[in-house]
Amino acid sequence: MSAALGLGRRNLGRTWPNPSVGCVIVKDGRVVGRGYTQPGGRPHAETQALVQAGSEARGATAYVTLEPCAHHGKTPPCAEALVAAGIQRCVIATGDPDPRVAGGGIAILKAAGIEITEGVLEAEARESNAGFFTRIKLGRPLVTLKLATTLDGRIATLSGESKWITGPGARAAGHQLRATHDAIMVGSGTVLADDPELTCRLPGLEDRSPIRIVLDTRLRIPPTAKLLADQDRFPTWVVTKPGHPARPEMSNLLHVEGSDSARLRSVLMELGARGLTRVLVEGGATLATNLLKEDLVDRIAWFQAPFVIGNDGMAGIGELGRGELDRISRFKLLSEQRVGPDSVALYSRPDCGIG
Amino acid sequence: MSAALGLGRRNLGRTWPNPSVGCVIVKDGRVVGRGYTQPGGRPHAETQALVQAGSEARGATAYVTLEPCAHHGKTPPCAEALVAAGIQRCVIATGDPDPRVAGGGIAILKAAGIEITEGVLEAEARESNAGFFTRIKLGRPLVTLKLATTLDGRIATLSGESKWITGPGARAAGHQLRATHDAIMVGSGTVLADDPELTCRLPGLEDRSPIRIVLDTRLRIPPTAKLLADQDRFPTWVVTKPGHPARPEMSNLLHVEGSDSARLRSVLMELGARGLTRVLVEGGATLATNLLKEDLVDRIAWFQAPFVIGNDGMAGIGELGRGELDRISRFKLLSEQRVGPDSVALYSRPDCGIG
Repeated sequence: MSAALGLGRRNLGRTWPNPSVGCVIVKDGRVVGRGYTQPGGRPHAETQALVQAGSEARGATAYVTLEPCAHHGKTPPCAEALVAAGIQRCVIATGDPDPRVAGGGIAILKAAGIEITEGVLEAEARESNAGFFTRIKLGRPLVTLKLATTLDGRIATLSGESKWITGPGARAAGHQLRATHDAIMVGSGTVLADDPELTCRLPGLEDRSPIRIVLDTRLRIPPTAKLLADQDRFPTWVVTKPGHPARPEMSNLLHVEGSDSARLRSVLMELGARGLTRVLVEGGATLATNLLKEDLVDRIAWFQAPFVIGNDGMAGIGELGRGELDRISRFKLLSEQRVGPDSVALYSRPDCGIG
Repeated sequence: MSAALGLGRRNLGRTWPNPSVGCVIVKDGRVVGRGYTQPGGRPHAETQALVQAGSEARGATAYVTLEPCAHHGKTPPCAEALVAAGIQRCVIATGDPDPRVAGGGIAILKAAGIEITEGVLEAEARESNAGFFTRIKLGRPLVTLKLATTLDGRIATLSGESKWITGPGARAAGHQLRATHDAIMVGSGTVLADDPELTCRLPGLEDRSPIRIVLDTRLRIPPTAKLLADQDRFPTWVVTKPGHPARPEMSNLLHVEGSDSARLRSVLMELGARGLTRVLVEGGATLATNLLKEDLVDRIAWFQAPFVIGNDGMAGIGELGRGELDRISRFKLLSEQRVGPDSVALYSRPDCGIG
């Protein structure tokens, strides 16, 4: 199952609106088929693995990171394909909460006499597909906030210097993070200040650049912005309020209604409706602050550089109005690693609704 | 040598003004003697190990974490004791920078025909005795700043709530940190605000409480302060400016001259002159800020709780006036560990003069 999970993680960020699943088929102690969800969400992992296994699938055990699908979509359901191939036993990490599946896949397998084992490495499987689970259960994508600060939480000195807080290793890890997300989201202030490309610029991963999303209520970003220049390669979605007319350089303009405080949630629901499961928020401080205020941050990828700037430097997170310590929701440290002189820790909100 | 280093670390915080050394004597692949510097700095590690080894020391190999001493103090030098015991080979982690030794110990051993190997696990040995090295080289103790903040560097909410940012595991680790330091230092504001005891309250380590030091320029702390109440058990040094008369409850009043900006350095030099090698700074934000401003922080033990308070909470570090990123000195991550839901990372200044 661990191998299947590794396969499943390979295409995180490329399979939306589908989950990224891994499948390993084992016959007589030998791996006869491997598969994982392909870009765009199809073919499914099981289909791939069954093709590889061929006639060896008969009597074999299939390890799948998510319950096989039960619904007739563009292809016949995977549960039926596993039955047809003669799989004898199926080990499933976790059930599929999609109402079109939700136990239906397992029911098909059981009805065909296939032996089922559920819940193997379930926590890992749920974490891998936390984006898909969040979208199915809450209607919005999983939101990961990326921050790169000093030890005291600063993103710039008092004179405004901010390049670079973290080193090249951390920046490479940041690009890798982009590759595993469906979209990168920033506020218009970040585009105006830095004119970023927000692409994945790691050798071999250039084609893994996700969709760029700019929250631009007042439509302030200029037509010359870099992320509007190469939209034929990597789409850029600009999200604004109703009433703002389309501009020629904005091929994907989304209008989202809502009051100021409720609007962020509405934007995320709209992104979920469009199929996004994993959104990485890269700035700036205003967007980070508002997402935290609205309790819309599911994960934090916090890069820390080992020095301090002090309270006269710019904080990475603005005012949250938090008084009582007991009422502040705590995150859970999932993992941490060193990247050159810096470190990166991944935090998860324990109550993010996918448990 | 690794075992000798472990022994040497046992009495960190109790051997000042001496280093805390470890010694293991091995004969025919068998450990025949173990020793480490005893509280107060004597007996030395080698003495202890030689007593244990007895006649087995003849022809044996001694592993010592610091060059054996060469000067006649209260006892004859260890180098001569090793020679007299018939040690055949001596493995030394690092030389002793004390001008009374500084190669003299090795010279005695060599002159007696003892085979010498130097530099084994040298970096670890220097880190273990960084306090002793700092005092010998710079005249002041090693300064370790302890901070317990949220991920965004806050120590209290906007309403002033600060108990507790970190959990019980982090607090226990904080007490353990106290046990390995010669002294704990705080500013008078911390005493006025929290009236702390600053003792080591871990089962079995109660007698490891270090000296308490309060920087109280204006002699503001009240006679009822907890850390003045139990001075017969654990000394409390109050540091003030010349001109402030002694008060009966202050049995250890130190007068240190100097302008505001240079005064902290003078205070540390005075502490060094009194023999302290390892000082743990526990608060408050003003003292932490001033030490960082004067570049007097050698280590940071940074406890982080996995949540954010925001920019309207109180920062653990105040204004440092730092502009150019390139000119800010960077720390080096030495180690990190999880303590319950929190984490603690130990950072070192790479240029702290003990390399």
